[in-house]
Amino acid sequence: MNLAIVRYLIGWMLGVESVFLLLPVVTALLYREPVVLAYLGVSAACMAVACLSCRKKPANTRFYAREGFVAVALCWIVLAGTGALPLWLSGEIASPVDALFEAVSGFTTTGATILSDVEALSHASLLWRSVTHWIGGMGVLVFMLIILPLAGGQTIYLMRAESPGPSVSKMSPHIRDTALILYAIYFGLTVLHLLLLVVGGMSVFDAACTAMATAGTGGFGLWNDSFAHYHSYYLQGVTTLFMILCGVNFSAYYLLLTRRWREALRIEEVRLYLGLITGAALLIACDVRGMFGNFWQSLHHASFQVASIITTTGFSTVDFDQWPALSKCVLVLLMFVGACAGSTGGGTKCARILLIVKSIRNEMQYLIHPRAVRVHKMDGRRVSHEVMRSVNVFFVAYLLLFILSVLLLSITNEALVTNFTAVAATLNNIGPGLELVGPTANFGFFSPLSKCVLMFDMLAGRLEVFPMLLLFAPATWRRDR
Amino acid sequence: MNLAIVRYLIGWMLGVESVFLLLPVVTALLYREPVVLAYLGVSAACMAVACLSCRKKPANTRFYAREGFVAVALCWIVLAGTGALPLWLSGEIASPVDALFEAVSGFTTTGATILSDVEALSHASLLWRSVTHWIGGMGVLVFMLIILPLAGGQTIYLMRAESPGPSVSKMSPHIRDTALILYAIYFGLTVLHLLLLVVGGMSVFDAACTAMATAGTGGFGLWNDSFAHYHSYYLQGVTTLFMILCGVNFSAYYLLLTRRWREALRIEEVRLYLGLITGAALLIACDVRGMFGNFWQSLHHASFQVASIITTTGFSTVDFDQWPALSKCVLVLLMFVGACAGSTGGGTKCARILLIVKSIRNEMQYLIHPRAVRVHKMDGRRVSHEVMRSVNVFFVAYLLLFILSVLLLSITNEALVTNFTAVAATLNNIGPGLELVGPTANFGFFSPLSKCVLMFDMLAGRLEVFPMLLLFAPATWRRDR
Repeated sequence: MNLAIVRYLIGWMLGVESVFLLLPVVTALLYREPVVLAYLGVSAACMAVACLSCRKKPANTRFYAREGFVAVALCWIVLAGTGALPLWLSGEIASPVDALFEAVSGFTTTGATILSDVEALSHASLLWRSVTHWIGGMGVLVFMLIILPLAGGQTIYLMRAESPGPSVSKMSPHIRDTALILYAIYFGLTVLHLLLLVVGGMSVFDAACTAMATAGTGGFGLWNDSFAHYHSYYLQGVTTLFMILCGVNFSAYYLLLTRRWREALRIEEVRLYLGLITGAALLIACDVRGMFGNFWQSLHHASFQVASIITTTGFSTVDFDQWPALSKCVLVLLMFVGACAGSTGGGTKCARILLIVKSIRNEMQYLIHPRAVRVHKMDGRRVSHEVMRSVNVFFVAYLLLFILSVLLLSITNEALVTNFTAVAATLNNIGPGLELVGPTANFGFFSPLSKCVLMFDMLAGRLEVFPMLLLFAPATWRRDR
Repeated sequence: MNLAIVRYLIGWMLGVESVFLLLPVVTALLYREPVVLAYLGVSAACMAVACLSCRKKPANTRFYAREGFVAVALCWIVLAGTGALPLWLSGEIASPVDALFEAVSGFTTTGATILSDVEALSHASLLWRSVTHWIGGMGVLVFMLIILPLAGGQTIYLMRAESPGPSVSKMSPHIRDTALILYAIYFGLTVLHLLLLVVGGMSVFDAACTAMATAGTGGFGLWNDSFAHYHSYYLQGVTTLFMILCGVNFSAYYLLLTRRWREALRIEEVRLYLGLITGAALLIACDVRGMFGNFWQSLHHASFQVASIITTTGFSTVDFDQWPALSKCVLVLLMFVGACAGSTGGGTKCARILLIVKSIRNEMQYLIHPRAVRVHKMDGRRVSHEVMRSVNVFFVAYLLLFILSVLLLSITNEALVTNFTAVAATLNNIGPGLELVGPTANFGFFSPLSKCVLMFDMLAGRLEVFPMLLLFAPATWRRDR
């Protein structure tokens, strides 16, 4: 394990975070809020540590999978730890565990909150929460892809660790170019969303926060009733659209930008993703028909909720915990599906669902004709056995983590549906669950133990399980080789 | 598809069933119950159909995987269909769907009932319910292994389809001998249990029914309060022991019988199974400590419930739905684990859990040292990639079926915990779940649609998912090849 380079990378991350921390500082100055000192202090401290860590480049730039996974996992933990400091130091969140929970929830783009009254927060802190989503959303991926070449090391492994999903197909031969393209698309979507919201009459502050939380598929709300605060169907509709857009595999945008329409339309994962949204929205719209004035209203709210859950954003315009069982069940299901691989969303990803459905079909073919040659294909290309294996192992690891988490939550909390959906909402980086953690409730009531479990789940969910597990494997830390 | 041989096999099955149907006939005569006519009639009808089907051997004895899976799946369906007839014809269960549910639950060794008052049943029907468990428990495996050679066909595939678990290691070179050994162990356990129960003061009728339901890991009770009716700690303790014994991989008994002690002790699956039982019983005993007089009572009841759930039997001495969340959560977890492969129990099987935990550990090793050679081992022997793949595919197929079932149940029933545990209890062939399907409740209130879904789940669970899915694959029924 080359710890020197890991330390160097974390130093760089802190430097970037300290720059982002200036955004709430400026906001606090504009709104004349006393929290300015907390943000300024933490920003300065981050910069100081960053300068110390990055004073000299490490002599040994060897950078293998191990270093990649450890660096990524530690980066997220350090990001969240320092990101929590201003919330706690400013006194806006009294308990350090709660502040950490909020920051982890932000950087992992979960959007689960422990606050019962978000409206009491300063503008600076509200903005900071959305900024954490924005930083987290695209993931340390892009950061790493730009920062890492500075260390002169091997970068491909980080892509593996960090990319949200089983494959970000190489859009461009140079990783750095890829990163810039992804970043540009991300930035473009955010700005476009912001503009459309401002046109619809939302204040610039609200629009900026909403656009950042949507682009990162985060879901921290600015109001106690989340998105229901904005009654305008236009604002809700635009946000539905942008949630869906942010859940699409970014490769599709690249193909569209380079006018390869046919290839873009052929991406099976995107088809499945859009099909699931359409199907689920229609099904729920019929199921909750009686709760709204007419079918279109019902479809409007069903679409918003479906988009919010499948992309793992977590905004809500209605309290879907009050919906009938079928609708709730469909939503819980979509929690596990998640968005496309190569998007900013969480969950197990549509690509994986597609691959396992194919593997089941293949297994059935195999049982019928044991000697036939079986090949897994996606988007017309062959999927290697290695990928299939890692998809399968991902699912079982994910499942075991899920089960263990529900078990640990049961020690201090009685309600099974609450525990189950709380883990589903955090491991899939969504935010709200059902019952005690429903859209109108919050995570504040959990015991500190449960909060730690949920924080681990958020991190594990965002980093596709294994980087977090590797932190606990002795082999990771061994000096030899 | 060689339908002739499938028809021939089903004919044989019906013949065997008609013989077993004479047991309730004799019981009805002994207790002078009017249901005798229903049982006698169905027995005669089965025998008539059997004679017609088996009049002449099929000319084409080609018997491949396809035929094996279809034959097994259809055998279970036909068994359940005919087994339901006397319950319905006798008028003891008014609705045909309910009678079918009860029979499917019996033959799949689930033990979920739709009856709110089992004590109102005739002795003949009570015995018949236990006999269905006994027939189902060891599975059509043994039947098939004895009957199939008569057809002169290839038999190894049936083993694959029918064996409860990923591997029944070849205990003896001749399949027919293997079958006889398994059968002898099964019979021995049943008789021993019966004798020990009678010694403890249970009536012979009750003891026979209990022993058969335990050996098949079924769980149909004779009393409305299931096993709580027998207050004796001796009877409950003996049954705890026999439930555990019936969940052990039968290969272990074979090794013990042939005095290969060391090999028997080395079976990793059995170690995991016994370890899980011990750990779960101790954990729950501590958790429910306050609900009983002293720790030993608490441990006694915890052990009974743990043994009943992990072996997927489904008896209960207390209403564990009233236990605290941690205990309930542990029990729900054990529902999914299930007993050992190669036993009469259901669930996903300890062997598979062991293999997936190993595959996760392997994946982590791989991520740390990508070029290291990875080999899966169990019991000191290498596990082929084919087996690993099929274990992984089994889990995802199982999961998808689980999810789909919960969704279908949600259409007509509101309570999520009920739906979730009802599917868990049927897909894993256990019996009771939580809340509305808890140990003191029954499945009678479900809509006919839900009952059909649950029946499918019971069959799919017992046949390890794929044989049931293959019935719906067009490729299965294609005439070519």
